[in-house]
Amino acid sequence: MKETPRERVGAVIAAAGSSRRMEGIDKIFASLVGKPVLWHVLRVFEDCPVVDEVIVVLSDESVPRGERLVEEGAFSKVTAVCAGGRRRQDSVGVGLRKLKQPDWVVIHDGARPCLTAELIKKGLKEARRTGAAIAAVPLKETVKVVDGEGRIEVTPVRESLWSAQTPQVFRFDVIAGAYASVTREVTDDASMVEAMGHKVRVYMGRYDNIKVTTREDLALAETILRMRHEGWHRL
Amino acid sequence: MKETPRERVGAVIAAAGSSRRMEGIDKIFASLVGKPVLWHVLRVFEDCPVVDEVIVVLSDESVPRGERLVEEGAFSKVTAVCAGGRRRQDSVGVGLRKLKQPDWVVIHDGARPCLTAELIKKGLKEARRTGAAIAAVPLKETVKVVDGEGRIEVTPVRESLWSAQTPQVFRFDVIAGAYASVTREVTDDASMVEAMGHKVRVYMGRYDNIKVTTREDLALAETILRMRHEGWHRL
Repeated sequence: MKETPRERVGAVIAAAGSSRRMEGIDKIFASLVGKPVLWHVLRVFEDCPVVDEVIVVLSDESVPRGERLVEEGAFSKVTAVCAGGRRRQDSVGVGLRKLKQPDWVVIHDGARPCLTAELIKKGLKEARRTGAAIAAVPLKETVKVVDGEGRIEVTPVRESLWSAQTPQVFRFDVIAGAYASVTREVTDDASMVEAMGHKVRVYMGRYDNIKVTTREDLALAETILRMRHEGWHRL
Repeated sequence: MKETPRERVGAVIAAAGSSRRMEGIDKIFASLVGKPVLWHVLRVFEDCPVVDEVIVVLSDESVPRGERLVEEGAFSKVTAVCAGGRRRQDSVGVGLRKLKQPDWVVIHDGARPCLTAELIKKGLKEARRTGAAIAAVPLKETVKVVDGEGRIEVTPVRESLWSAQTPQVFRFDVIAGAYASVTREVTDDASMVEAMGHKVRVYMGRYDNIKVTTREDLALAETILRMRHEGWHRL
């Protein structure tokens, strides 16, 4: 029986312009359990067998530091460390263009160091259904839609609301097509694909797959990684 | 000049049935910087000069423990520690009926130990405008509206979305009226008042006014309170 050639999976780590909330320090290099935040992300992608290639997109001034980190960590899947653009989507766009025409693309926030290989694999599996799938978790909080005057307009039913995370996984042509067409600012990659009228699926992410934007988040990420390391997997 | 009599402000601390997510331990009594979570909440209300009376609503089995905590902490404003009902709103309803006809009511989650007196005062000030105001913070995450099949329906514009917190502050007749009329399950008190067609305002809460539902949250709350204690107020 002839084996089907395995599809190529590329990843883009979006880590440019993420230091705004942490007083000048690029949080992507903040120390987390003794290693930079970005190191933890790259470790997971390096060790995830389904991923072939990784592009790291950093802010201009962080590129040299990123290159050193990749070299010192011996992250063999990283084929480029490059400078991003003004908006998050400009940076991801740079990353997508650097990829060597993969079949699938996994886009991940560099500031989410608590992801797992399982989340990447689940994303790829789920994306096969419609070409696009994102990790997300059901919202635990009550959300209010508020008008410009600070008055609540409506409280949407919580059951239908999910908080988007990354990884966000796309068939390459789907995300490349969206990036070629959508120019308005968006807050995640799925929004672009949605704007094209393409169906995007959500799959269960992890509540502890947090985005590190403040020092408190960093302390929480440290707790999460330590608890996980100590074999406590219940979250 | 004749002085206007100061309006009475009552508070209801909703702390019943909150242990579901923490393996049998009632998280309201979990240790946080050496004191139970609930102690921190009561401390803030006790020390907040605008609050006259506090009702604590706990799960049936936690009432004796709550009474001891109030006694040992010498929380003089607490006039009742009572058992709540099945749903959060049933518990708050019990608390509202125990209050001695105040002019204003401050409802607060017992599991939010990082509130400040400032948040209570701001709430009262803001509530004077329409009779109802809640602490909330602009959402940092991207929210997706998802259908029953796990497909994204729409990504609401993030700018208009706020995450509801407590304190939630109401004129007594407004919240009592809402509780008398609305019976469907809601996730916060403001929803009831909104259902009555009454305008509710949001005011800026604090990102670190977190709700403690997991052990990780507890660790984060510990970090927040310690950082604040060390004079680090920038969040």
